[in-house]
Amino acid sequence: MAQTKVNNGVNVDALLASREALKGAPQAAQFPWRASCKWQNGTHSQTTVQSFFGLGQEQQHKEQTVHVADHPEVFASEDHGITPIEYVLVGLASCLTAGVAAVAQNRGIQLRSVEAQLEGKMDIRGILGVDSDVRNGYDDVKVTFKIDADASKKEIEALVAQSQKRSAVYDVITNPVNVTVEVA
Amino acid sequence: MAQTKVNNGVNVDALLASREALKGAPQAAQFPWRASCKWQNGTHSQTTVQSFFGLGQEQQHKEQTVHVADHPEVFASEDHGITPIEYVLVGLASCLTAGVAAVAQNRGIQLRSVEAQLEGKMDIRGILGVDSDVRNGYDDVKVTFKIDADASKKEIEALVAQSQKRSAVYDVITNPVNVTVEVA
Repeated sequence: MAQTKVNNGVNVDALLASREALKGAPQAAQFPWRASCKWQNGTHSQTTVQSFFGLGQEQQHKEQTVHVADHPEVFASEDHGITPIEYVLVGLASCLTAGVAAVAQNRGIQLRSVEAQLEGKMDIRGILGVDSDVRNGYDDVKVTFKIDADASKKEIEALVAQSQKRSAVYDVITNPVNVTVEVA
Repeated sequence: MAQTKVNNGVNVDALLASREALKGAPQAAQFPWRASCKWQNGTHSQTTVQSFFGLGQEQQHKEQTVHVADHPEVFASEDHGITPIEYVLVGLASCLTAGVAAVAQNRGIQLRSVEAQLEGKMDIRGILGVDSDVRNGYDDVKVTFKIDADASKKEIEALVAQSQKRSAVYDVITNPVNVTVEVA
């Protein structure tokens, strides 16, 4: 594959250099990501994201962004934004998609288009407390990629598999994470 | 507690009625949530959310929304939006906050303000493949609430604990979810 002709917009050389650099500097690899949420009214909230820490120092996104969440009208709410559980799909979709682009670049595969459809099945009897045997979150999430690239079906499937293997959000959803919730 | 005087903007009566209605109609409680992601360039993607299914029929959010994700400049990316893993914090923050409001309404506690600070610790040696013993996602997530309400510290802590107990996103992060990723 003619790697030099491929451009998916991912700077793989920089990523590989980071990998080498971090081998000897585990402290620099510690990234606490942050978010700050403010209740508006009812189930409506706004979460602001801007700063994080990494490579041993404070970092900032170029812009501060505000992410609105609410419950829909069928839950007797005002639907000011998407539901919290849909944000999980946004995270998963974007993580796997970024991974596909990065892996394709590294493997010298030119991408033309990448689309993913996600569906997360939830039984709302859990959160409503109807049946304690029903879990609160997703039972099952399905991601279906449609990828147009200079590669065989098998190579494309291998791209997606590798993206999954290195995805932070896929890991968080499929494996348990320790979460502590406190009142200041 | 004078429940009738409390207004946190949550229609608890409607939620309790839904709970009763869904006891006899488990099919209506099946909610597949959906998202559709389109790769832009590099690690930049846009995820669109609008329709979902629930109460036995197709549903729509009032508005279609687009959620931009990217990697930051320290990852040699263009930082067009927050990272996928930060979207997980947005989901968790907004889910627990909506829960606090709903539980407070149900318990007759007037909220004045609810804020949550979140931090998710990630060691990026995982996603970069530096060390296979390092996981890709968060090691640990901490949520700290600051709540001003007509209630004792103990009652406020109980609100937060109950919200956690019924949170869809908290469940998804702390427990394993089955995720299938396919190429169409």
